[in-house]
Amino acid sequence: MNIILLSGGSGKRLWPLSNDIRSKQFIKIFRKKDGSYESMLQRVYCQIREADMDAKVTVATSKSQISAIHNQLGEEAAISAEPSRRDTFPAMALAAAHLSDVQGISPEESVVVCPVDPYVEKDYFAALKALASQAEKGEAKLVLLGIEPAYPSEKYGYIIPADDGEITSVKTFKEKPTAERAKEYIGQGALWNGGVFACKLGYLLEKAHEQMDFTDYQDLYEKYDALTRISFDYAVVEREQSIQVMRFAGQWKDLGTWNTLTEAMEETVVGQGVMDETCRDVHIVNEMDVPVLAMGLKDVVISASPEGILVADKGQSSYMKPFVDNMDSRIRFAEKSWGSYRVLDVEKGSMTIKVTLRAGHSMNYHAHRRRDEVWTVISGSGRTIVDGMEQKVERGDVITMSAGCRHTVIAETELKLIEVQIGEEISVQDKVKFELP
Amino acid sequence: MNIILLSGGSGKRLWPLSNDIRSKQFIKIFRKKDGSYESMLQRVYCQIREADMDAKVTVATSKSQISAIHNQLGEEAAISAEPSRRDTFPAMALAAAHLSDVQGISPEESVVVCPVDPYVEKDYFAALKALASQAEKGEAKLVLLGIEPAYPSEKYGYIIPADDGEITSVKTFKEKPTAERAKEYIGQGALWNGGVFACKLGYLLEKAHEQMDFTDYQDLYEKYDALTRISFDYAVVEREQSIQVMRFAGQWKDLGTWNTLTEAMEETVVGQGVMDETCRDVHIVNEMDVPVLAMGLKDVVISASPEGILVADKGQSSYMKPFVDNMDSRIRFAEKSWGSYRVLDVEKGSMTIKVTLRAGHSMNYHAHRRRDEVWTVISGSGRTIVDGMEQKVERGDVITMSAGCRHTVIAETELKLIEVQIGEEISVQDKVKFELP
Repeated sequence: MNIILLSGGSGKRLWPLSNDIRSKQFIKIFRKKDGSYESMLQRVYCQIREADMDAKVTVATSKSQISAIHNQLGEEAAISAEPSRRDTFPAMALAAAHLSDVQGISPEESVVVCPVDPYVEKDYFAALKALASQAEKGEAKLVLLGIEPAYPSEKYGYIIPADDGEITSVKTFKEKPTAERAKEYIGQGALWNGGVFACKLGYLLEKAHEQMDFTDYQDLYEKYDALTRISFDYAVVEREQSIQVMRFAGQWKDLGTWNTLTEAMEETVVGQGVMDETCRDVHIVNEMDVPVLAMGLKDVVISASPEGILVADKGQSSYMKPFVDNMDSRIRFAEKSWGSYRVLDVEKGSMTIKVTLRAGHSMNYHAHRRRDEVWTVISGSGRTIVDGMEQKVERGDVITMSAGCRHTVIAETELKLIEVQIGEEISVQDKVKFELP
Repeated sequence: MNIILLSGGSGKRLWPLSNDIRSKQFIKIFRKKDGSYESMLQRVYCQIREADMDAKVTVATSKSQISAIHNQLGEEAAISAEPSRRDTFPAMALAAAHLSDVQGISPEESVVVCPVDPYVEKDYFAALKALASQAEKGEAKLVLLGIEPAYPSEKYGYIIPADDGEITSVKTFKEKPTAERAKEYIGQGALWNGGVFACKLGYLLEKAHEQMDFTDYQDLYEKYDALTRISFDYAVVEREQSIQVMRFAGQWKDLGTWNTLTEAMEETVVGQGVMDETCRDVHIVNEMDVPVLAMGLKDVVISASPEGILVADKGQSSYMKPFVDNMDSRIRFAEKSWGSYRVLDVEKGSMTIKVTLRAGHSMNYHAHRRRDEVWTVISGSGRTIVDGMEQKVERGDVITMSAGCRHTVIAETELKLIEVQIGEEISVQDKVKFELP
């Protein structure tokens, strides 16, 4: 089975855990059997592997997520990264070209396309395999997964099937309706459109070539910024006559808000947290290293991270976006290809951060124009290069770098350091990259 | 007017703002006209000064609070500090001896004794002056302030006056009653006993000498650890026949719990915090430098500090003590005589803290046996002494100290530094003090 996982954009509806550079699919919130936690992305990736050992997974994403994906899945997963955001049709075209031209998959093979963020169980992946087989038969150009509605949701588009068969043709599509209208649709046997479908790889490529002028993956990648923004539904699905839908009646939960996310959590407390016995339906997700104490609350979600603290009635939390948009958006935690950093302290004229480098990784060789920096290595070992001079470093070593001085650190083991930045103007923009000497 | 302000022990009922070493009276939570914030202690001290420019204020407290009191009131306030905790009678005896022997106040002058933590207005201090005058007249040995009950509280003792006169003799005292019983008392004209009284200084000294064997302040101080623990009520008030009570009908709120404290706050948000329009009766007190977002809550207090995060129904918050007792009690923020420190990061084998020194102050000259330290000065200037070698330091300077190395820093201006501690065992106990060379 070939799968394209759509790993979407930044979401603010799960603030303070998600923000401009950290998306909900990377939050480690689901407890594994061994007691550690995994993210939506890791969970779905493992589930695919369990359903089909030989599945070829390609993550379609944006450039900014590449580091986080490699950190969470390792180097094994194929990534098709858009150089810029161009909506779903260009993204799928690029991923299809990647499968064909980079991975060498035949246009006769089928490919399943699905978003990374629904919370699903084993039966879902069995359904995806059935979807892939059905597409390979070629009875229709596109085979959609139609999800049996759990309630008359206003958040999804609806598929009206021709009849109540397990696999049948599509009569028509309906846009996101009112709850009232949704009930009517459901009365007519309508199914949710979760954006999951299968088709032959050749079909995707054919549709792409019809509407975009390119030769192969590399060519499409280079022309990407100039492509028109257009959704796959609008560009392809709505114009296609030959579409089937396959019913799916298993669990399928969209984890886009705290309300739905906490429903999918097996535990009520992740991180340090205590509740008194009068709390009811309270969830605590705490990424800080200080405890949370909750008392006498009902239907409330509490989440704390280096970005901020949310305390919200679960229903009300769906409306957080405008409040989060207005917040100070200084990023206080970020995953990078080489590891991660966390802001510990901000003062006028200085900032203190903790940097964690993965074994074998290094920062860019870079300099700052307007700030000095001091590194104190607190664990691990590696090498620093400062203005071309290389030296071994280990726990306890201190490296001072004046403004203008070029520097990097290469981790041999996992290496952590405290970086104190000092300067009148401290900004992430103040960074000049260089080739290593 | 002579006033002894009783600045009591550590309270956990206002966690995470109060803890073992930081008491509620030092939390800066009340907004002043200039927009800055003041603590209970600072507020009451200013109110006394406004009511009586010449008032002599002595703060009776424990050794551990001296630094915080000096930081908040300056060096001007007299402090009578118990070398160890010995309940209220020994504490008052020591303070009385301080007034007499250190401050030279005549035994014929009256002295008002009151706790530092009720939330009161101007009329209260007018009442204290009247109380002092009444005591000076000598009609009775002790004159208590009887507070008109706002409700049948179970938290206070009650005073039953002989009649309903403004100043009258006390018929009897009643222990903290049930609410039912409290109603009966109030029906009989009972008043709250808030622990506020006045008497001649000589009376306090006489009672002290009757029950403790000492010559003067210095002698009592030295014998303090051997004194019996006994309360002033039990040792003196309950045995005294000549007691008057003066009625007080103004505002008097005990700020011992979040419920009562938030009632006294003029603003609903202190620190970074945002509420949506569906929040009702919500208070946010945030000492962290990340925002709090509250949505859809009712009657809830949210408080965040470097010690932890509280989210509690206001009524329920009164029952927090057992939960707080069970929490990790690592202190993450502390005020010292020389300034303050805050823990920024804790890792296995290292800890990073921010140290703020007040201008003109310095740390003890000290060494650690089992850890190295690195200082990076992030603002201000001063001098360091490291193994006897003195050097000037300013913003950007880095000082490294191996285990065993003796060190201190003397701030010329306010000076802030980041201290990285590195060692297998990091403990506050690992500190050896030395005389400066």
